[in-house]
Amino acid sequence: MQKTYFTPGPSQLHPKLPVFLKDALELQIGSISHRSTAFHDLFEQTVCSLRLLLSIPDEYQIFFVSSATEAMERIIQNGVEQSTLHFVNGAFSKLFYQTAIDYQKKAQIREVTPGQGFDCASISIPPEAELLAFTHNETSTGVLFPLEDIYAIKQSHPEKLIALDLVSSSPCVPVDFQHIDYAFFSVQKAFGLPAGLGVMIVSPRGVEKAQALQNRGSVIGSYHSLIKLQQAAQKNETPETPNVLSLFLLNRVVKDFLEEGIDAIQRKTIHKAQVLYDYFDAGTIHSCFVKTARFRSPTVVVVEVNGGSKPLIDFLKTKGIVMGSGYKEFKEYHIRIANFPALSEKDIQHLLDSISEYNG
Amino acid sequence: MQKTYFTPGPSQLHPKLPVFLKDALELQIGSISHRSTAFHDLFEQTVCSLRLLLSIPDEYQIFFVSSATEAMERIIQNGVEQSTLHFVNGAFSKLFYQTAIDYQKKAQIREVTPGQGFDCASISIPPEAELLAFTHNETSTGVLFPLEDIYAIKQSHPEKLIALDLVSSSPCVPVDFQHIDYAFFSVQKAFGLPAGLGVMIVSPRGVEKAQALQNRGSVIGSYHSLIKLQQAAQKNETPETPNVLSLFLLNRVVKDFLEEGIDAIQRKTIHKAQVLYDYFDAGTIHSCFVKTARFRSPTVVVVEVNGGSKPLIDFLKTKGIVMGSGYKEFKEYHIRIANFPALSEKDIQHLLDSISEYNG
Repeated sequence: MQKTYFTPGPSQLHPKLPVFLKDALELQIGSISHRSTAFHDLFEQTVCSLRLLLSIPDEYQIFFVSSATEAMERIIQNGVEQSTLHFVNGAFSKLFYQTAIDYQKKAQIREVTPGQGFDCASISIPPEAELLAFTHNETSTGVLFPLEDIYAIKQSHPEKLIALDLVSSSPCVPVDFQHIDYAFFSVQKAFGLPAGLGVMIVSPRGVEKAQALQNRGSVIGSYHSLIKLQQAAQKNETPETPNVLSLFLLNRVVKDFLEEGIDAIQRKTIHKAQVLYDYFDAGTIHSCFVKTARFRSPTVVVVEVNGGSKPLIDFLKTKGIVMGSGYKEFKEYHIRIANFPALSEKDIQHLLDSISEYNG
Repeated sequence: MQKTYFTPGPSQLHPKLPVFLKDALELQIGSISHRSTAFHDLFEQTVCSLRLLLSIPDEYQIFFVSSATEAMERIIQNGVEQSTLHFVNGAFSKLFYQTAIDYQKKAQIREVTPGQGFDCASISIPPEAELLAFTHNETSTGVLFPLEDIYAIKQSHPEKLIALDLVSSSPCVPVDFQHIDYAFFSVQKAFGLPAGLGVMIVSPRGVEKAQALQNRGSVIGSYHSLIKLQQAAQKNETPETPNVLSLFLLNRVVKDFLEEGIDAIQRKTIHKAQVLYDYFDAGTIHSCFVKTARFRSPTVVVVEVNGGSKPLIDFLKTKGIVMGSGYKEFKEYHIRIANFPALSEKDIQHLLDSISEYNG
């Protein structure tokens, strides 16, 4: 029996993936040269479709790397000479901070307890920080960083570069990229694809910073410096042989999303999220980990389970449902429910019915 | 009509790939967590099978990265404090050298004309070079670096770290890893898989060097430093969400290669290479680009075509054969023929018959 994956990445695959893979085999996508016209067309189409789907401004670059984790590394290498500030409220925002530390930047941190959001009005921004790093959707705890708060910070600090981790929220939440210099996501979350590809969205200022750092003699990496990524992208290529199959699959998923309409996808996401939060708010055996509504992620719903989450996760397994456990220290207490486009309203209802059955 | 790809990477896919992909879909490999037991088993099995297939010593580490190009970067970041020496005879050995330059190492170069091999006895090794970088099989020109020459250099310079690019030769040529500290390949060449995964093989001294550099305060990267790769590998994991699907496919291909037997695969490679070289040596319209037998690659056969290669490549296209053109400056003069396991003796014969037909 095929299981339904509610895990927040890798997650449930796009329902048409078998068809897309069949097409890839027929078109022999795994064999085409990454310097061929066929590849150039695929690259160009994928960039155009992503631009359309996500409303990415024309002057912004779209680059393909191997993972969101790599994107963090490339942003630190190419966007920071000395100093960063990281808003940390879980494991993935901490990973971004750790990446800056690994590259020996003066990385400062503003941290809140997991499950909490930031009171941005009270947060001081150090003048020396060149880049401010935000995690839109903390996959480890289900906390959302409201985009208006990030836009407001950018407006009062227009000289800062803004990096935004969109890993488990894109394309389910609309983003105004005019306020953002570096954004990134990976395809195994809301795009419903196997892992192995990361997408970076970079503003003109983001690329200029890389060029300025290089001109000043800083190391900005090698094949995946933003400068080399840009030079290759101008030819509809990547510097190295990329994950061409994944690019092909992403192209197909984006096309499918465009056919459905991004508004419809985003509306469905909000509706399904509401169903989930209402259910868990009404229960007594479980409660939503994030208490404040405006900090609740629409795409990763984290629930505390009284008495521990393992028996529930085991029960759901008997119903063909694979559920994410809590992240690290919350492993035994939480469940994490992905609310991605590959999971339908029917899937969500089946999940909630199964949890009700477990609760008895 | 399905075409046959003789291009040296991406290349012809393993004939069982459709079956492996079908299994991956049934097992929902694209959805499994990279922290799950299912993934741990896959990781461990793949490492064990690769160790067996390639005779990798038990004390060597096997790491998974996103490409061979990334492997070059990680070797430079983790294996070199100041100084390297690169043996350059084509585009890919030059890329390794360029990577060292990008990371501001004092990179020296020993260069020969494309198509030529090195007279190692006459080459001086600078005492300050910490790492010597070799390209076993220069995919751009079809020149082999005989492994005995590399082993001999290591024996007379045991203090040096040896890096070896096995991109288009592994697993078709046996390597004695005792002489090598860093080796790497990518899966879209002789393993017959879609691109998107690189494999690194690292000696204990190779890991120690990374640790020593870190202890001395050098930047050795972030999530893919050899130290973090090793810490994750000890748990049968990767630091980031990897290309799980590609790892699954590699596991299947390696299992298939083990069933056939590595000796048989290597013997077949030599036999098919001999057929190819004999054919082109006997012709008058074309000639082998590499003149000296011991420098001829068994896996990438490069042929000069009198009057230019494009008409021949176009003719072969009508026969369902996709042929690699020459690399960069040789684009219009050469064809490059991959002699990988996915291409059978029958495929080679079909190619040669078609070329004979073209020659008239």
